[in-house]
Amino acid sequence: MGRNLFDSLSPVDYRYWDEEVAKYLSENGFTRYKLLVELALVKVLHRRGICPEVAVQEVEAACGQVTTDEVYEEEDRIRHDIRALVNCVRAKVSESAKPYIHMTATSYDIIDTANATRYKDVVQKVLVPSLMKLEGVLITTALREAETVQVGRTHGQHAVPITFGFALAGYVSRLGGCIEALKSLATELPGKFSGAVGAYNASSLFFDDPEGFEAEVLAELGLTPAEHSTQIVPPEAMIRLFSEVVVAMGILANLARDMRNLQRTEIGEVGEEFGADQVGSSTMPQKRNPINFENIESMWKIVVARFQTVLMDQVSEHQRDLTNSASARTYGEIIAYVVSATKRMTRTMRKLTVDRPNLERNLVIQKGSVVAELLYIILAAQGHPDAHEKVRVLTLQAEREKRSLEEVVAGDAEMKDYLKKMTPHQRQILSNPSLYTGIAAKKAKVVAKEWKQKFGL
Amino acid sequence: MGRNLFDSLSPVDYRYWDEEVAKYLSENGFTRYKLLVELALVKVLHRRGICPEVAVQEVEAACGQVTTDEVYEEEDRIRHDIRALVNCVRAKVSESAKPYIHMTATSYDIIDTANATRYKDVVQKVLVPSLMKLEGVLITTALREAETVQVGRTHGQHAVPITFGFALAGYVSRLGGCIEALKSLATELPGKFSGAVGAYNASSLFFDDPEGFEAEVLAELGLTPAEHSTQIVPPEAMIRLFSEVVVAMGILANLARDMRNLQRTEIGEVGEEFGADQVGSSTMPQKRNPINFENIESMWKIVVARFQTVLMDQVSEHQRDLTNSASARTYGEIIAYVVSATKRMTRTMRKLTVDRPNLERNLVIQKGSVVAELLYIILAAQGHPDAHEKVRVLTLQAEREKRSLEEVVAGDAEMKDYLKKMTPHQRQILSNPSLYTGIAAKKAKVVAKEWKQKFGL
Amino acid sequence: MGRNLFDSLSPVDYRYWDEEVAKYLSENGFTRYKLLVELALVKVLHRRGICPEVAVQEVEAACGQVTTDEVYEEEDRIRHDIRALVNCVRAKVSESAKPYIHMTATSYDIIDTANATRYKDVVQKVLVPSLMKLEGVLITTALREAETVQVGRTHGQHAVPITFGFALAGYVSRLGGCIEALKSLATELPGKFSGAVGAYNASSLFFDDPEGFEAEVLAELGLTPAEHSTQIVPPEAMIRLFSEVVVAMGILANLARDMRNLQRTEIGEVGEEFGADQVGSSTMPQKRNPINFENIESMWKIVVARFQTVLMDQVSEHQRDLTNSASARTYGEIIAYVVSATKRMTRTMRKLTVDRPNLERNLVIQKGSVVAELLYIILAAQGHPDAHEKVRVLTLQAEREKRSLEEVVAGDAEMKDYLKKMTPHQRQILSNPSLYTGIAAKKAKVVAKEWKQKFGL
Amino acid sequence: MGRNLFDSLSPVDYRYWDEEVAKYLSENGFTRYKLLVELALVKVLHRRGICPEVAVQEVEAACGQVTTDEVYEEEDRIRHDIRALVNCVRAKVSESAKPYIHMTATSYDIIDTANATRYKDVVQKVLVPSLMKLEGVLITTALREAETVQVGRTHGQHAVPITFGFALAGYVSRLGGCIEALKSLATELPGKFSGAVGAYNASSLFFDDPEGFEAEVLAELGLTPAEHSTQIVPPEAMIRLFSEVVVAMGILANLARDMRNLQRTEIGEVGEEFGADQVGSSTMPQKRNPINFENIESMWKIVVARFQTVLMDQVSEHQRDLTNSASARTYGEIIAYVVSATKRMTRTMRKLTVDRPNLERNLVIQKGSVVAELLYIILAAQGHPDAHEKVRVLTLQAEREKRSLEEVVAGDAEMKDYLKKMTPHQRQILSNPSLYTGIAAKKAKVVAKEWKQKFGL
Repeated sequence: MGRNLFDSLSPVDYRYWDEEVAKYLSENGFTRYKLLVELALVKVLHRRGICPEVAVQEVEAACGQVTTDEVYEEEDRIRHDIRALVNCVRAKVSESAKPYIHMTATSYDIIDTANATRYKDVVQKVLVPSLMKLEGVLITTALREAETVQVGRTHGQHAVPITFGFALAGYVSRLGGCIEALKSLATELPGKFSGAVGAYNASSLFFDDPEGFEAEVLAELGLTPAEHSTQIVPPEAMIRLFSEVVVAMGILANLARDMRNLQRTEIGEVGEEFGADQVGSSTMPQKRNPINFENIESMWKIVVARFQTVLMDQVSEHQRDLTNSASARTYGEIIAYVVSATKRMTRTMRKLTVDRPNLERNLVIQKGSVVAELLYIILAAQGHPDAHEKVRVLTLQAEREKRSLEEVVAGDAEMKDYLKKMTPHQRQILSNPSLYTGIAAKKAKVVAKEWKQKFGL
Repeated sequence: MGRNLFDSLSPVDYRYWDEEVAKYLSENGFTRYKLLVELALVKVLHRRGICPEVAVQEVEAACGQVTTDEVYEEEDRIRHDIRALVNCVRAKVSESAKPYIHMTATSYDIIDTANATRYKDVVQKVLVPSLMKLEGVLITTALREAETVQVGRTHGQHAVPITFGFALAGYVSRLGGCIEALKSLATELPGKFSGAVGAYNASSLFFDDPEGFEAEVLAELGLTPAEHSTQIVPPEAMIRLFSEVVVAMGILANLARDMRNLQRTEIGEVGEEFGADQVGSSTMPQKRNPINFENIESMWKIVVARFQTVLMDQVSEHQRDLTNSASARTYGEIIAYVVSATKRMTRTMRKLTVDRPNLERNLVIQKGSVVAELLYIILAAQGHPDAHEKVRVLTLQAEREKRSLEEVVAGDAEMKDYLKKMTPHQRQILSNPSLYTGIAAKKAKVVAKEWKQKFGL
Repeated sequence: MGRNLFDSLSPVDYRYWDEEVAKYLSENGFTRYKLLVELALVKVLHRRGICPEVAVQEVEAACGQVTTDEVYEEEDRIRHDIRALVNCVRAKVSESAKPYIHMTATSYDIIDTANATRYKDVVQKVLVPSLMKLEGVLITTALREAETVQVGRTHGQHAVPITFGFALAGYVSRLGGCIEALKSLATELPGKFSGAVGAYNASSLFFDDPEGFEAEVLAELGLTPAEHSTQIVPPEAMIRLFSEVVVAMGILANLARDMRNLQRTEIGEVGEEFGADQVGSSTMPQKRNPINFENIESMWKIVVARFQTVLMDQVSEHQRDLTNSASARTYGEIIAYVVSATKRMTRTMRKLTVDRPNLERNLVIQKGSVVAELLYIILAAQGHPDAHEKVRVLTLQAEREKRSLEEVVAGDAEMKDYLKKMTPHQRQILSNPSLYTGIAAKKAKVVAKEWKQKFGL
Repeated sequence: MGRNLFDSLSPVDYRYWDEEVAKYLSENGFTRYKLLVELALVKVLHRRGICPEVAVQEVEAACGQVTTDEVYEEEDRIRHDIRALVNCVRAKVSESAKPYIHMTATSYDIIDTANATRYKDVVQKVLVPSLMKLEGVLITTALREAETVQVGRTHGQHAVPITFGFALAGYVSRLGGCIEALKSLATELPGKFSGAVGAYNASSLFFDDPEGFEAEVLAELGLTPAEHSTQIVPPEAMIRLFSEVVVAMGILANLARDMRNLQRTEIGEVGEEFGADQVGSSTMPQKRNPINFENIESMWKIVVARFQTVLMDQVSEHQRDLTNSASARTYGEIIAYVVSATKRMTRTMRKLTVDRPNLERNLVIQKGSVVAELLYIILAAQGHPDAHEKVRVLTLQAEREKRSLEEVVAGDAEMKDYLKKMTPHQRQILSNPSLYTGIAAKKAKVVAKEWKQKFGL
């Protein structure tokens, strides 16, 4: 079935669609995985001496041919999705092979197991590699800018200096931890083959060790069984995985927010690269908008909200109700948005322009008040009984008189003795705030290198 | 551009897609509306003597030809969606008509106005009519079942009797109020034509009354201007509309929850109609599952969560940021899900089976304890000083002795005098709980008829 | 019962508690309203000739004495909140008055009616007046700053100029609309007196017109009945009210976001007033942080999330389940946070400092590129076939050569003829961007004055 | 400061307050932890030879005396919470000790570290032990009911049998996994002592190894430092912890939903114990409502929504903004609700009544149709080419003719041969569905015992 792409309702289909993701998370991808599960079942039935090898071959061939289109046609007739799939496979094999298809299985043995497999795969093969590429770009940039002094900002106000590489290293560290968590959580999605209510009612008619049988089928797909399941696997592992996917998106959103603020006209420390033909506004030809960072923050607002649906699906009555029928189908979109945002972030950060003159200009806007902390700390260390208050008053004076803090300090009688006792290095920083960066540069490098090595980037 | 339907990532595109909705809310629908806005602008420029009639004709013809496919191609080149659209229209008209296209407009004059128009239209032409059909079915059923006695349930426990029609009349009333709210809110979405920052900077170069000009363009589309806009219309009207759309979905979810509980094997008072070929379970051939009601409740879980995205988009910095670029594109899906759920609910309720024997059986499960309230009220009215406690103790006795409350009361010494003073009608109800339905039947009819008349159904 | 205030777990109790709000929304406030409802019932029983006047007097006196403390003690004993309240009132009246207390009523006749009354009251008497005060401050400031030119910003980038008053007028308009909506929605909360399952089962034993009786009781409290209720009133009116409360919070959050961005060190156009003794940072004595605006945005994040709880409570099974028992108790906190944020915003905006030199400095940062739009519009109007592209290239040239757009235009051969055809006014704006403000100043005044008049501020 | 308890606005303070939780998560608890951090700092300053031992003693004594009340008074004066705390400690020590208090620290070195410590503690000392008690009750009940046959339910419809212990074992397993996750996540909350922007600007003036100094201070509190921090610790560890807390609540909600459905009048398989004096309804004296299970589900709706606030706080601009000032103060309430729900669930499950006659009655309601699956599986295994369809038709026939499936099968010509080939055990199950429980009983025991042993319960 075809349809014009732009008749789609969801931007994830007409605008942010990604072939890599679709391989796993489209409806076609889902069909493919459900067929893999049905095939794994028949393989193990054969291994256990229940069905002949030829049946396996027939089923494997049939599974290779079944299309989602025909499954939907059959479902239209009988109103049951998995029975429709089973019928489609059955229609392509001989009478003698038919009974083995879906044998002992209930629909959710297939569906939950297929979902566990494809979500594991898409995280391992698409999401994590995408995030890893971004991590690589962030590491490279953090190392390159490790020594680039930048004013630190808290509350949107100038605080004390850092380096731009240090700021980026924070994202290297946060994203690194998230990637590790995702890798781990992807392997913890359980499958199931315990039948209609999880008690192996059907399979225990055939096998003395129905749990062994289950484990064997799941092993074909690289999964292990849930310790206990009902008609469905317990939902917690999926929630944990998606919680971490949302966390990844939050890290991207935070970086995007920072970057678009640093791109403000008045700040201008970084910029999205702009194509030669690119238009910024349909009416204001001079505009250079941070559209990619805005887009990423926008996707965060999509994704954060949708996690609520995943959480609401945790409650399923008795051995299951089906009130997650439509909602669980939407989980994949969350991953699709995060992958889209990750790829966009990678492209944008790779070409980020860093405006050194603006970085330097911004550092001294407040005429050295940013080292007020330094002064307070040194006074305190020298035993001044009310150092914080003393410096607060001096900065107010500097502001009022529009002079630098250094000048005001120099002219203050009480300060004289304290200034004398300062080390030359301390006095140097007082004159040159760009020296007051603590271990920012070193930290930027250590953190970036650690993750570079850990991930072999 | 085509692609196999099942390569879609969102179930709203491969499974719950609806042609009626897509006409307005697909990307093609959006393009169509944006072109309508561009055309409305040129028409008013002509009316105001700025552009010749032939330009209007050229633009109208051009707008009829522009496809989303070509707009996306142009956007790929210049990275700006509305400028791309404008370029596509410009490419189809003569040099002399070119300058009038998009004249004085900023992108969001087009986008926000197009959105207001299409959301108004889809609510008025698809959502409300769908809900109205459902309302019709609920009214018919409420009237038909107005006298069908059913035990009332609170906390999942039997309370005192109602009628099934009375229960449905509650949904008639709630849905009726929601439909009226939707109709009203759909007309309150403002448009805008106030330029890049909302101050009519460009249009005031051409018109003494730029606000008059704006009103004139919007009138072409059946809209009125926001009292004040920035680059965008204030978001509140859209939030209010979507809040009500979510409210509609909640009413459907509540009805679905009720129906699927009434369909429980042990209760069995209603049932989804089951097709002759329909399969209930891939492995349990006897199952008759409330899959439609479950599906509707599932869609509620999608929709409730997504409203959070709409709320988060309320904050836009200064004269706007673009952090709603991706997220605002997803709003239409909310409506698509609600329309899908509404149509499904209509089909399902239309064929709902009502099992009268089960209704009668359930009414007497508790051997008349359901009239304990009646007894307590009458005792109190007769001046018993501790009526509630007295009856509570009697019901405990009835439960312990597995006798009906009526019997226990008859055997209680203290009760004798009170029983004597009861009216015959009161004694009759005590023996026959199905008479203790208050004005349920009357109320069912009055409410149903009022909405039937109000909506001309 | 007392307890140290700081043993509280919720900041709404130990930090943001507000006496005005607590009068309605604390547990003591709730008790007071429930007693009002019980009293209203007895009054109407008397009016209808069922109970003697002396009983009314006794109940009125008793209701004046019942404390929440004693109700909780009784509830501890019998495990039912409303029966506990009823017992407390009963204990304070004569035997002959006892039977009339709570007569025909079910718990939720009292609870839902009490909630409707107190939410109506708190919105009308606290929330709306608070918002109105803020509206007054915004109007005053918008009028005062109507002519103060400010650069308009979209995407955090300089766009074309507005005035600061114009920006504020947008908030006047949005908040004004929200106040009107709140006033209206507060009056639409229905009460109920329809008994245990909504069918007037008990009251119809006493009254021929149980609906008339219900209306009479509710009229005592300024309410009207729901068209149809179950054990509870339909939840939609409460959802609509809270949706609008959340909308109010979103408007505050948007204003807060704008203000804290304008307070950034590099922008510095506005500032929160700072007390003489106020400390900005525990370690950086020079800091002037926008802590009030940050606090308001923080409260928005509390409130937006919690609306989800209100939405989830919409589904209640059959004639009601009690899964909103704890959750509905938390709704009042939403209002408490919004009132707290409103009062804080009012205080902060009232003393907002506006830095005119910084406003002027920022306006010309981009050397006149902000009038690129003007140039494009005029070229287009003069018939230039590719005006947008021409100006885009000129702005790139200006940026590259670090010259003003005006200079570059003056030096461009193709521009000569176009410049000649410009009106003097147009040329004037090109030299002085602060003139390119459209009708911003006028709009600021018109909008502010309209709401000033509408609200009699 | 005192105030009547019932003037509180939040039910977590007037109704669900818990002393164990308040020790950590009240404002007084918070003050206590902040003081612990300030003290840890001075201890390490001493160990590193910067401050004399007597200063440590003075600070320790002072910290023991500072009350939240006086900190709030000081904050009222200077408008900064941590500086107020510092001033209160300073006021209680000699001039010579004053400079060492808060030395090199920024507010969030104290706040984030205090939060990490107290959230770790409350999870380890209150939440996990509470969940563990519940786990113990569930294990005991699962073992006791391991052989109690119960009909399995999917979609609210009878499926195939399980045992009640098997159903509970599912919760043992899910809760067990959650407890393990919580224990692990509680230890992963990082602290920080890296100063105002995270670059150790101040502490590197005093120490060659400021990171070593940080680690030493945090070790005093049982914490380790974040790999990289800004003014604040990266938020991800806190999000992960709260995600798991919400997961715990979801498991409780699921169990509560199941139990209250099993308590429905028509099902009646379990019941909340009812006190001798307990009142079920203010007007219906016979009611036995599942109010505890309802309350737990209600708390889930509170908690699920609020996690959204935690997620929204993940984005903090640059080296931090303060838009989490109010919102982060509300996180503790999430834990308070989950502890309250856990304790309630433990009490309720401990006294859960199990109604064996009702369990048996429900099992046979459908006259054996629940073994339709068995029949289909056996037919399929015997090579019937269309087993599912055959059995589906037979169950329809049984339903139509109101006969048991067994009878219909016995009378079906085609079935004869298949029946003959059945094993005696298979035929036995066909007559007695209660035998068709797979390995439910065994699984119940294995799972329950495994967690019993793992947790030493």
